[in-house]
Order: sequence, then structure tokens, then C-alpha cells
Amino acid sequence: MMISAEERFARALLTRIAEPGDELLGRLIAAEGAVGALDAIRSEFPPDACLPDSGLPNSGPPNTGPAGSGERRVARRFAAWRARLPGAEPERLLAECDALGGRLVCPGDAEWPSQLDDLGNRQPYGLWVRGDQDLRFGCLRSVAIVGSRSATSYGVNVAAEMGAELADRGWTVVSGGAFGIDAAAHRGVLAADGLTVAVFACGFDVPYPSPHGGLFSEIARYGLLVSELPPGAPPTRSRFLVRNRAIAALTRGTVVVEAARRSGALNTARHARDLRRAVMVVPGPVTSAASAGCHALLREWDEAVCVTDTAEVLDLVGLIGDDLAPEKRGPVLDRDRLDPVTRDVLEAIPARGGAGTARIAVSAGVDLDTALASLGALSAGGFVERCAKGWKLRRPPPNS
Amino acid sequence: MMISAEERFARALLTRIAEPGDELLGRLIAAEGAVGALDAIRSEFPPDACLPDSGLPNSGPPNTGPAGSGERRVARRFAAWRARLPGAEPERLLAECDALGGRLVCPGDAEWPSQLDDLGNRQPYGLWVRGDQDLRFGCLRSVAIVGSRSATSYGVNVAAEMGAELADRGWTVVSGGAFGIDAAAHRGVLAADGLTVAVFACGFDVPYPSPHGGLFSEIARYGLLVSELPPGAPPTRSRFLVRNRAIAALTRGTVVVEAARRSGALNTARHARDLRRAVMVVPGPVTSAASAGCHALLREWDEAVCVTDTAEVLDLVGLIGDDLAPEKRGPVLDRDRLDPVTRDVLEAIPARGGAGTARIAVSAGVDLDTALASLGALSAGGFVERCAKGWKLRRPPPNS
Repeated sequence: MMISAEERFARALLTRIAEPGDELLGRLIAAEGAVGALDAIRSEFPPDACLPDSGLPNSGPPNTGPAGSGERRVARRFAAWRARLPGAEPERLLAECDALGGRLVCPGDAEWPSQLDDLGNRQPYGLWVRGDQDLRFGCLRSVAIVGSRSATSYGVNVAAEMGAELADRGWTVVSGGAFGIDAAAHRGVLAADGLTVAVFACGFDVPYPSPHGGLFSEIARYGLLVSELPPGAPPTRSRFLVRNRAIAALTRGTVVVEAARRSGALNTARHARDLRRAVMVVPGPVTSAASAGCHALLREWDEAVCVTDTAEVLDLVGLIGDDLAPEKRGPVLDRDRLDPVTRDVLEAIPARGGAGTARIAVSAGVDLDTALASLGALSAGGFVERCAKGWKLRRPPPNS
Repeated sequence: MMISAEERFARALLTRIAEPGDELLGRLIAAEGAVGALDAIRSEFPPDACLPDSGLPNSGPPNTGPAGSGERRVARRFAAWRARLPGAEPERLLAECDALGGRLVCPGDAEWPSQLDDLGNRQPYGLWVRGDQDLRFGCLRSVAIVGSRSATSYGVNVAAEMGAELADRGWTVVSGGAFGIDAAAHRGVLAADGLTVAVFACGFDVPYPSPHGGLFSEIARYGLLVSELPPGAPPTRSRFLVRNRAIAALTRGTVVVEAARRSGALNTARHARDLRRAVMVVPGPVTSAASAGCHALLREWDEAVCVTDTAEVLDLVGLIGDDLAPEKRGPVLDRDRLDPVTRDVLEAIPARGGAGTARIAVSAGVDLDTALASLGALSAGGFVERCAKGWKLRRPPPNS
């Protein structure tokens, strides 16, 4: 871990007192660190770094009024955060999270997905995570599947099948845990024994929507539940919209399967586009209102690409941001290029079934941190994938 | 008529002895005229204009072999045309056509659709036409609807509805008279009392496919049957492909409703693209093989635009090549800008029902040619449309 306990406590507290993705707070953290930001909030007056036209990069929304009104707005925001401080104890938040089997992943942690840095000052202050998988490794090769809550059986089938097929190819599927397309995508992955990540707009222990309690238990067991909000936080409309940027930022691309004209999935697609991730759209019958938003994307956005199957999805996310092994090359061919330690770790993984990190470390004769780093590199390179036991060798791609 | 009887006879004969869209013949006609081209074919030796690298614009396909082989190829083509001359009498062809209620429309005729000039040396030598409507005026505001012969009920419904709605807005629908999407589009237009044009890959009197005999009779009565081939000519595979370029060239854009991966409709779309006409694609379920070709177009062609209803089609064709009145403006507003003669003709059209050109000419106090020219301008401007009686006032667009 590269961050101090003090910094972690500060970030835990910030997730409690501020709404996720607050750009003003993001600027403050960038300038002063989380501990400094919290100190500033506790003090009476906002620091210069927060004031309008402070010259910081990624400064907030355009300030149209006179400077004075901007200052007042900042002061009001600080007051609101300060008002939530009493009773908010980071030690208790972290202990509660721990009791629920979760952890707080912060920027600087080994498990932090660095692609979230693309969000600039709107990046999460920290992520509350439940599940045994590694969030960073899990999201290196990941795709978001999002869509309508009131999906048709067509959309549900497409999302489930795509989820299962992406899992089969060693890709992680990220979605929002909602009714309809989200749930179908998660379920498809689970059925294929793959890794799926549900990003919540409430605490990871809040089963929203409640009929998905069983689904979320299963995701917590085999995948990951993730939230920018601490345990117990309820969902709100604005939290859903802010949550969508995290789904887009975690993944290499977003697939929209069925979206009506004003679907929240279009909001996720917009974030994906703004983050220069792939925007992939599954068309449907033009007679179906559930696909009208998809067709609008295809018509109106140059960036939106029509996809009809998993291979077409992988064509796109395999290219965009691909600093990893090329998609279509069988990993075995690359084994010779690995450094000796990583090769030892790879050879320590049993040919059949899987093994835990500790056992792999012992077999390879390296310490646990080295094993974990090597396994991360091997996962990113397509050599290994996570499994219930820990790690297993990846099947070569079907066309190699 | 601006072309001589001799030229018309020559063009009639050329449609009989050569396949449509032959670029070599097109070059020859461009250089020598139709009469000169026929003289050259009758003589033993091809003229210089036909030889490879003759320096003419739009010269034929690249000649990869030595000049000699190019010359031999030209000579063989000439021999093939010459071989078909015996028994081919233009007077008889034209008399047969006349007996069938048809006519030959040639470049230079008032009824010739000048947009066909975009085909360059591959433009039709002439068009054999059956039906009372004016081909040129009819195709000024026209859209092609094409698609799979083995259409699903989804595609059939979309094509029929789009055909009817385009007709309602005063647009002409051009298609190929085939099973499936083509027939649905034609039928939709007929049901809405609109103008539809069927372009055949055989003589306009050859009911192919034969179950469409009734449909073709109805199109002949209310719309137009068009062919580059003289009456009696049978369809061939290559004639279908060549025919597709005429469908694309006649219209401002081509809508593909359902097309499998290797559908002939994709060939029409390709011609539309090459001619810089709008390429519009109706998506469908990704689970439907009948839409796979449509989705491939959306994925692979920058020029292909996803359309889901008639308004979206008109958005595109109203812009492309629109030197006419804007789509959404009610024609009444523009009445003041018409020249006096055209305004007289417009006012001679009864407020309810329609009237024939002759009656309109008499009422307006102009001669028949003047009336016809004015009606053409009025039709292009959206003031009038054709009807069973001749011409009627157009309803204002729904949103004016």
C-alpha cells in the first residue's frame, strides 16, 4: 500500500460527507491531498485552491456570475460538507465495511484501477469494494454492458449471451445491477463462471433494487460489488448519473443493449464517449421503443459503432487503449518474452484447475507481492485469468 | 423532343444488341453519338475512340494486359453486338412497345431523368417506360427502397409503411419489383395512392417474378414500369446487378430494409454510395440473419446512416442534392415567388380532386408544353402531385 492510514481515513470520510464526483472537492484533493482537503473543510474558510479562476487544470464549471457569487457558492458547498462531519467517523466506517467483508480501495493502492485517473478531478475519492477478486486486474480487460431497465426479451437475451461470451473469452463485464439489461449481463457472466463487477449508486450492502438481493450475493461471491459511497448510503437520482461515469471509466468500452430515448444508459454512453472509450450499440427492431435510444446514438454520434455480436465488441475494445497483448495472438507464443520471474510464476500455475496466490508464490519461489504483481502482468497479457480458486491458465483464444 | 428520330432508332437498337450499362459502348456513344456508334458496330473495325488509352474521360476498366489484348477484347465485343443485329429492327421494337402502351425515353427527351447523367459512360442508352406518369418529374423527389427477397414480416411491415408514408409526403418510391421488401414498398405506395416506379431487369412486359403480374399491372396503371431492356427481353443475373445502378441513380437515396450478408440490395447501396446518393439503413434484431447485411453496412461504411422512420429518411434526402424547396416549409408560403405563368398554372388546378394536363393548360391559358413544364416545377417545389386524374394540389406537410 502506498498511501498512509491518515490519507485512507480522510478519503473514507470524504466519501461520507460529499457526493461522489464533486469537481470542487476533486480540485481541492488534487491541490492539497485528501488530508489537506479535510483540514480545509474543517476550517472556517475555503482555501485559494477552491476559488473560481484559481488557474488549476480542469477547473470547475464555467463561472458566469461575478467572482463574489462564485466565492459564495464555494463557501456554501464547504458549509454543507462541514455540516455532515459530526458523527462521521472514518474508523467506524472502515470497521463497518470490514465487518461486511469489504475494503476501501484508494488512489495509490495496488488495487486502484488507474484508468479512473482519466476522470481528472471527477475521479472517485475512493471505492468501497466487496468481493475476493482484484479490482484493478479485473478491470484491465473489461467491457460495460448497460441498457434499459424495462428491457424486452430480445434485449435480455442479447445482453446475457454477450455477457457469457465475453466471460468465456476472459473479459470482465461491468454493469450497474439494475433491472433488465444490467441484470441480464451480470447473470450471463455468472452462468459462464466469469468475473462481473456491479457498480452501485448506494452502499454495496444496500440491495437496490431489492429483488436483486440474491443476484448481488452471487456477484459478491464470484465477482465484485463496487461503490463510491460508504456502506449504508441510500441511492439517489443524481448518484445514478454520477455512478455511470465510473462504469464508463472502469472499462475499455460501453455496449448499449436496448435503451429508450431517455434511458440512463445513454448517459453512460456519453461518459464513455467523453472518456474516449469505445461506444458500442446493439441495434434492434425500429418498431421497438426499447431500441429507439440505440438507434439515435447510431444516427447522431460518429463515435457510436453498431455491434451485433461479441466478436465485434472485442474487435473494438481490443484496439482501443490496447497497450496489452494483441487479442488474436495465442498467449503461448509470447511466453518467451516474459521476464524470468514472471515466467516462473506462470509455470507455477497448475495445468488444470487453478491455485491461490499464496500457493503459486510458494511454487514459484517468490514472495506474495511479487507473485501478485506477476499475476497481474500475466492477466493483462492474457496468460491467466481469475477463477474461484484464485488463478488459472487461460484457454488459448478459439481462432489461434 | 430534342433528339432526332434516327438517334431514337439507334438507341432502341442498342438496347437490343448490347447489355445495359456497357462502358465501352457508353464511351463510343459519348464520342460518336448513338447513330455513329451503331455505324461503327456495323463496320468491320472499332473506331479509335474505343481503343484502350484513348484518352477519353471516364475510360473503361484498367487495361492490365498489353495494348494488343485490349484491342482484341474490344473487337470481340463489337463482333458480339454485330452478331445480334440481324433481325433487330428498331421500327418494330418501337411499334411493339407502343402496342404495349409504352414508350422509349432517351437522353435529350424532356422526360429523361437528368440525374442519370451521373452514371457517366454507364448511363442507360434509353429507358423503355410504361405508365402515364412523367418519369423525370416523378423521380425528382424519389427514394429507393430495396431489400431482401426472403424478408421477414418485420421487414415487410417497415417497407410497406415507409412506402406509404413517403407517398403521403409526395415522394416517389423506386424499387425493383422483387419478392419481399421491393414488393412491400411498391404495395405501400399504391395503398397510399402514391407514385411508385419499378425498374426491371427484363422487358417491362415480362412479369418476373410471375406471381407479381397483378402488382405490375397496378404499377403500370398508377405508376411506372421502367427497363433498360426492350420488351420481351428476359432477366439474367448480370442484368439484375446492372439494373441496381439505375435504381440508385434515379433516386436521391437508397433505403435498405433487411438485407442478408450477400443480398443484392447491398449492391444497390454500393451504387448509391458511389453516386454520392444517401445510403440509409434500417436496423433490425441482431438475431435476425435478414438484417445482418444492414448491420454490416452500419458498421463498415461511414456513409451508411441508420434510419428508423420516414422523417429520418426525408431529413437525409431533403438535404442531399436539394436544389428544390425546403421540405418543412408549407408550399403556400412560397406561392408569391413563382413566376406569373407558373402561378397561373397552379391556380388552374382545382382545389379538390385533380385535373389532366390538357384541362389545366386550357384553364391557365397556356399551351400544353408550357403547362407540363410549369407542373414539373410545381411538383418539384412541392405544390402539386400526380394523381389518377393527372395533377392535384399537395396537402401541406403535417408540421407546417
